[in-house]
Amino acid sequence: MTGLFVVFEGGDSVGKTTQVRLLAAYLTERGIDHVVTRQPGGTAIGAQLRGLVLDPSHGEVDPRAEALMYAADKAQHATELIRPALERGAVVVCDRYVDSMIAYQGAGRALDMADISRIAWWAVGGLRPDLTVILDADPSDAVATIAVKDRLESAGLDLHRRARAHFLEVAAADPGHYLVLPARSDRHELAATIAGHVADALAR
Amino acid sequence: MTGLFVVFEGGDSVGKTTQVRLLAAYLTERGIDHVVTRQPGGTAIGAQLRGLVLDPSHGEVDPRAEALMYAADKAQHATELIRPALERGAVVVCDRYVDSMIAYQGAGRALDMADISRIAWWAVGGLRPDLTVILDADPSDAVATIAVKDRLESAGLDLHRRARAHFLEVAAADPGHYLVLPARSDRHELAATIAGHVADALAR
Repeated sequence: MTGLFVVFEGGDSVGKTTQVRLLAAYLTERGIDHVVTRQPGGTAIGAQLRGLVLDPSHGEVDPRAEALMYAADKAQHATELIRPALERGAVVVCDRYVDSMIAYQGAGRALDMADISRIAWWAVGGLRPDLTVILDADPSDAVATIAVKDRLESAGLDLHRRARAHFLEVAAADPGHYLVLPARSDRHELAATIAGHVADALAR
Repeated sequence: MTGLFVVFEGGDSVGKTTQVRLLAAYLTERGIDHVVTRQPGGTAIGAQLRGLVLDPSHGEVDPRAEALMYAADKAQHATELIRPALERGAVVVCDRYVDSMIAYQGAGRALDMADISRIAWWAVGGLRPDLTVILDADPSDAVATIAVKDRLESAGLDLHRRARAHFLEVAAADPGHYLVLPARSDRHELAATIAGHVADALAR
């Protein structure tokens, strides 16, 4: 693979979408081939799976079924979109990836985190990001700013706290591939820091 | 769990639907509480997942995504339908279960069978049938009799041969929980044999 795989992770409303957009703008300005995408829902099948999980008309979705549908989304996304883009040498910028699944399905729910981790990494065939940017914020600030729209977001503050702990833990264990940044910093300063790391990675 | 969990497995067009129906008729005659169901598709979410996998308009479904969607169907089915029925003491008669998933996703495709097995049993929380009836037939006979309707069925004779080998292997390894019967026998003789085994299991 000759491309570069960059992932943004973090809680809800920490500014991932904004930073994805600013990084894409940076890459566009420099004429660097790139693809912006997201999980769940980066493919036609993924979008339908996401709809299926979030549609309250189906009644209670079993937590294992939910985790497996998110894993299926990841498998399809890795094969249909991420790998081909990396193979042609593009930068792939992805809003959420495997760490989010482990954080929200494993840390947040009643499921064993080691099982979720194994299934999620199996789903993507072990495809690891070159750089994961974690936009870190205290969830008690972040959650208050969003509308509680669907069952994931309504799962409460505890889930978001455990998810944050997971993000910080994986980042600490592999500092060469993770960049933890305070989400409440100035968005343009953040974007410049991230762009600097991406430029360094592209130069290597 | 006080109920009895009976599964029918085997290739396509070996007569599973007929035997499920005849066993249900036997249970109805004796006034035994029972639930007839199937995988994939025994729940609202399962039916949608099955439709998603089989809909050719989505393009090529990644094999891992396909396996994970079938696993999600199993998870939802076990939680929403099978466990509650067993808990109230009913006989659950299920057309296909975990062995079919392992046979078709693991034996048939490029995926590792041990991985598929682990994911499928994780999905159902380790819920094992009390009795699995395998209707065994040479797939070169069976496949010729069905219309090749969808991508699963169009995967060819090799897949069906490997699936058959898997069914026979798991049955041989656990004869106390498996009953292998020649699918081409008289349907009423088969039904009587199966009913006898179910009656024995209910008496225990």
